[in-house]
Amino acid sequence: MPIPASQPVAPAVLTDLLDGRWAHVRREARVRMAALPSPATYDLTTEQHREQVFAELHELAKSGYPRVGFPVSHGGEGDLGGSLTSFEMLGFGDLSLMVKAGVQWGLFGGAVEALGTERHHDRYLRDIIELRLPGCFAMTETGHGSDVQHLRTTATYDPATGEFVVHTPHEAARKEYIGNAARDGRIAVVFAQLIAGGSEHGVHALLVPLRDEAGLTLPGITIEDCGRKAGLNGVDNGRIWFDQVRVPRDALLNRYGDVAEDGTYSSPIEGDSRRFFTMLGTLIRGRISVAGAAGSATKSALTIAIRYALERRQFTRPDSDDEVVLLDYLAHQRKLLPALATTYALHFAQEELVTTLHELTTDDHRQRELESRAAGLKAATTWHATHTIQTCREACGGAGYLAENRLPQLKADTDVFTTFEGDNTVLSQLVAKGLLTGYQQHLHELGSVGMARFIADQFVGTVIERTAARSLIERLVGAVTARDEDADLLDRGWHLRLFEDREKHVLDTLARRLRRAGEPGADAFEVFNAAQDHVLRAARVHIERVVLEAFVAAVDRCADPDAAALLGRVCDLHVLSTVEADLDWFLGHGRVSTAKAKAVTGAVNDLCRHLRPHAAVLVGAFAIPDPLVAAPIASGAERDRQDAQRGHDQDRLPRKEDSGRATAS
Amino acid sequence: MPIPASQPVAPAVLTDLLDGRWAHVRREARVRMAALPSPATYDLTTEQHREQVFAELHELAKSGYPRVGFPVSHGGEGDLGGSLTSFEMLGFGDLSLMVKAGVQWGLFGGAVEALGTERHHDRYLRDIIELRLPGCFAMTETGHGSDVQHLRTTATYDPATGEFVVHTPHEAARKEYIGNAARDGRIAVVFAQLIAGGSEHGVHALLVPLRDEAGLTLPGITIEDCGRKAGLNGVDNGRIWFDQVRVPRDALLNRYGDVAEDGTYSSPIEGDSRRFFTMLGTLIRGRISVAGAAGSATKSALTIAIRYALERRQFTRPDSDDEVVLLDYLAHQRKLLPALATTYALHFAQEELVTTLHELTTDDHRQRELESRAAGLKAATTWHATHTIQTCREACGGAGYLAENRLPQLKADTDVFTTFEGDNTVLSQLVAKGLLTGYQQHLHELGSVGMARFIADQFVGTVIERTAARSLIERLVGAVTARDEDADLLDRGWHLRLFEDREKHVLDTLARRLRRAGEPGADAFEVFNAAQDHVLRAARVHIERVVLEAFVAAVDRCADPDAAALLGRVCDLHVLSTVEADLDWFLGHGRVSTAKAKAVTGAVNDLCRHLRPHAAVLVGAFAIPDPLVAAPIASGAERDRQDAQRGHDQDRLPRKEDSGRATAS
Repeated sequence: MPIPASQPVAPAVLTDLLDGRWAHVRREARVRMAALPSPATYDLTTEQHREQVFAELHELAKSGYPRVGFPVSHGGEGDLGGSLTSFEMLGFGDLSLMVKAGVQWGLFGGAVEALGTERHHDRYLRDIIELRLPGCFAMTETGHGSDVQHLRTTATYDPATGEFVVHTPHEAARKEYIGNAARDGRIAVVFAQLIAGGSEHGVHALLVPLRDEAGLTLPGITIEDCGRKAGLNGVDNGRIWFDQVRVPRDALLNRYGDVAEDGTYSSPIEGDSRRFFTMLGTLIRGRISVAGAAGSATKSALTIAIRYALERRQFTRPDSDDEVVLLDYLAHQRKLLPALATTYALHFAQEELVTTLHELTTDDHRQRELESRAAGLKAATTWHATHTIQTCREACGGAGYLAENRLPQLKADTDVFTTFEGDNTVLSQLVAKGLLTGYQQHLHELGSVGMARFIADQFVGTVIERTAARSLIERLVGAVTARDEDADLLDRGWHLRLFEDREKHVLDTLARRLRRAGEPGADAFEVFNAAQDHVLRAARVHIERVVLEAFVAAVDRCADPDAAALLGRVCDLHVLSTVEADLDWFLGHGRVSTAKAKAVTGAVNDLCRHLRPHAAVLVGAFAIPDPLVAAPIASGAERDRQDAQRGHDQDRLPRKEDSGRATAS
Repeated sequence: MPIPASQPVAPAVLTDLLDGRWAHVRREARVRMAALPSPATYDLTTEQHREQVFAELHELAKSGYPRVGFPVSHGGEGDLGGSLTSFEMLGFGDLSLMVKAGVQWGLFGGAVEALGTERHHDRYLRDIIELRLPGCFAMTETGHGSDVQHLRTTATYDPATGEFVVHTPHEAARKEYIGNAARDGRIAVVFAQLIAGGSEHGVHALLVPLRDEAGLTLPGITIEDCGRKAGLNGVDNGRIWFDQVRVPRDALLNRYGDVAEDGTYSSPIEGDSRRFFTMLGTLIRGRISVAGAAGSATKSALTIAIRYALERRQFTRPDSDDEVVLLDYLAHQRKLLPALATTYALHFAQEELVTTLHELTTDDHRQRELESRAAGLKAATTWHATHTIQTCREACGGAGYLAENRLPQLKADTDVFTTFEGDNTVLSQLVAKGLLTGYQQHLHELGSVGMARFIADQFVGTVIERTAARSLIERLVGAVTARDEDADLLDRGWHLRLFEDREKHVLDTLARRLRRAGEPGADAFEVFNAAQDHVLRAARVHIERVVLEAFVAAVDRCADPDAAALLGRVCDLHVLSTVEADLDWFLGHGRVSTAKAKAVTGAVNDLCRHLRPHAAVLVGAFAIPDPLVAAPIASGAERDRQDAQRGHDQDRLPRKEDSGRATAS
């Protein structure tokens, strides 16, 4: 497969494209963070680390950082996209600080803003923004982590005193893993089953004070430290029990449900379940922030591993004393370069999601679609981070295991991202369910011809909604009329058709399969459970299509022709390595022939070789300031040592006998 | 696909089979370790952890543990298999202690024993066994980690004084990552290029004192602490520089090469390279020990994750208030049960390898085959550990991220296993190279008919050498004459044929491809490098066949029919999930039809469901004592909380309205 030559590109050209709409936020964050990088934390005790992070959080508050996302009316700047972008940038520093900031301003502050009303905003927002009131987001319980709709903490209204009584009825109902709880939080947004007028009204949120100004726990509150974790030890996670704690009626964050003085419940939203998911929907930003930080950590890891791979040498070439640079080995390229390509793809998908959310006006349908995409991208990005950072660690061998080279901390800190702010497996099911909702409603009404038409319509409709480059994608998809088996492996239209067709097929067969759940006598749980691997695949292939389209749109936006050409090859590698990872499906469903399957593997190898000379530029474009990259193995020390060796080797004695070549390469 | 019903089996029956030949060593270790489990280390500073581990190492020495593997003539018991098994058992405790013991008695003590001669044995072995002389194994250098044949430390013989001068010529030649160096080691086996009589003789090992009895570093020695690592922080890794350090002539471990008083070099082995690999070959035990410990850590992680999955509930069934046990979800079964099945498979392969090594008499050919198998199994087992422990962490959600539940430590400690004692990617290439050696020698001599015959012969020969159950395997392989497309998915003969055929094909095509390297004008490095993914696949499929045959042999050894039947299903799940992971190859090479490919996925689901009721027994059979499992989530706390919730829920108020079902499942 002939690959068009790629010209050298200056990293700054790519950086401009990657930086996108909130480039100013990124540039400012780089300057601020490079000037005062977080000191290394790996030798700190838990308490020392927490202290350092809390001090840094205060510095952040002073810098005005948290204002960006809050409303102008309460001292903020009302720039949601800028706020999400600045969270992403925090991901280049100590991830404990990112999470601590996320708890204070994203979850806690965000809940007060989104679920509260004017009285809460007036009373709390400024103190929250300026960190005079450190708070917690107390949703998760020990017994209910993923299934938070069924949590068991109660908030019972007592009309005699006009108070809510907040209570932990048993051990499984204690609040679990609450950030800011073990040390710094003074107040919490507590999610509890609301009981008023003698009945339950589902989960609502209330503000419950935890500690006084001196930091002493208030009466009725018990807090336990969750203790040491795999990572993120600068965040003070704790467990909270409430023993009949009384708070005034106006502690209820009452935007979506209120209780009158006499105990009468009222809500603008019908149905506990719908109301609950509306409340959760306002918290979409948490997932987007986690995905952004995971992306940043992945970029840090790749920057370290690829810079090392460009300097580190191991084993000589046959019949030569030249030692081979690691990144010249195909196996090493295959470890790092497809992961780098997919990191680009996910970056552009994330950027597009942030932009769409930023521009969102009140529109129930698009909100749901965005929630689904945020959930899916969060799953994809955090799994990619876990996999890639692991690979980077291994690619750096023992050096990658040393704390000073940062990969261990990046791995440990991001590891929980796959299961917090929504377990990825659970989120993937939500994505699939969202895709099926339209399906299931319609399939009952339509005959098979109508169904086929509906399926086609559904996807055209979905494409229209989802990508910023609709006309481009449609043009590319339709550009080639030849049989796809003959399509060139680098044909973008073929790539797009392949991903779209796969999604259609997986979703179509899944919908048919799940219809059985509605048949008389069927055990709905068993039908769904037996198809769970199919459900997870549906979510994955859907997100893979969305990500690809975002990447294609970004390449199209690139005004510099050389940069666009190079990015095109990165996109090719992303597509074909994704296809290669799912070849069993494509082969098993007759979407590629065995000849083409082999060609895909060959093309991945060719593209790795092709992009090898551009690897430094491609990680350089992430523009992570050197003080944040920090790892000694990524800072030229290895090159210096190689030079010293070469200097020395010139004076070596001749070997008495030729040892023969016995390298492992 | 109908799966024969499996009867309940007592875990002890399986434990007997798993415990195998060195059952007495395992039982003794369980009792000893359960009586005094390592205290939790996650809150310790590096220094505290090192102190604790060194104290535990002294306890081990007192218990007589290290004696098992050393020769009877020097206070040992001469039981190599027992020694390797007891290393494996240490893997159920603090892995820092396992590695520290491995450095002292496996690497350092093993090198003195294997590379030294009587004078070294007499002088050092007892002190080593009894830990009066803590030592290091100083092979790796900063510039040469994998390619140790080219390390740069020199040992130059000075006939004027009868001494060797050990020297670090430049920064890349400093000794790197040396266990026991930063704190406790008093002496080191140092690997250096031997220079005598004015020429180099390749890498040899010498004993070089590092510290005096008071622990002070000796003149000419500089030691630096490697500092904090991702895990294994109870091991004091350090860097060592030698500045013209003089040691007497008899410091040379001279079994494979000696220097006379006048500087004349002599060796029983011709050729630097062959000599070097003979010296390395004696260190095969290190790789086997790492594989064993990785297996133990994997068993610990699976025990924790599966016990939790059997008690943890999340989300209600449709139209019910019953919350579903995690392991009832197909997605959760798929995360844990195939990994459990492969853990069984690798256990039996490891056991077989230990037995074969234990019984080995001097036989050059079998030694090389065993080295290759040890390298391949080490790669397979440690990658499986990394993958499985990661999965277990995720399967336990936030609870899996808490240090008290041990998964973070298991993950961090074992993470380096994939790259130490040989980087897995490098080891895999050694395996492939070993398989090809015979090939390449023969292919030049044979025409195509002869080659085909040779290929067939080669594999029969290989099978004969490798498995303890040769006649069984041959009977099974030959048992079915029907077309394989029609073979039952649980047909063991089909499994064996499928794996053997894949190995033949991959190796055959690889051999043809690599022959090009010998053609005139070919760049041998480029030819080899372009095929590197093919090379890695060859190693993997070879090891997968070896592992499968070991599992099949173990099922055959099982005298209890119910246990054998259950193990048969575990073996089926291992085989079919391995096939599923490589379906792109089997489909792409016409080895399974698309219909059969779908059936494989269905069968994996069916086998997961089938084994679900036996999951507790299958992890129980590992017989890890409760004080070593240790994690609170694996000890019934979750069940107690579920009970408390159920008790409480009986008194709950009725909901005012049906909330509708909105679970993610």
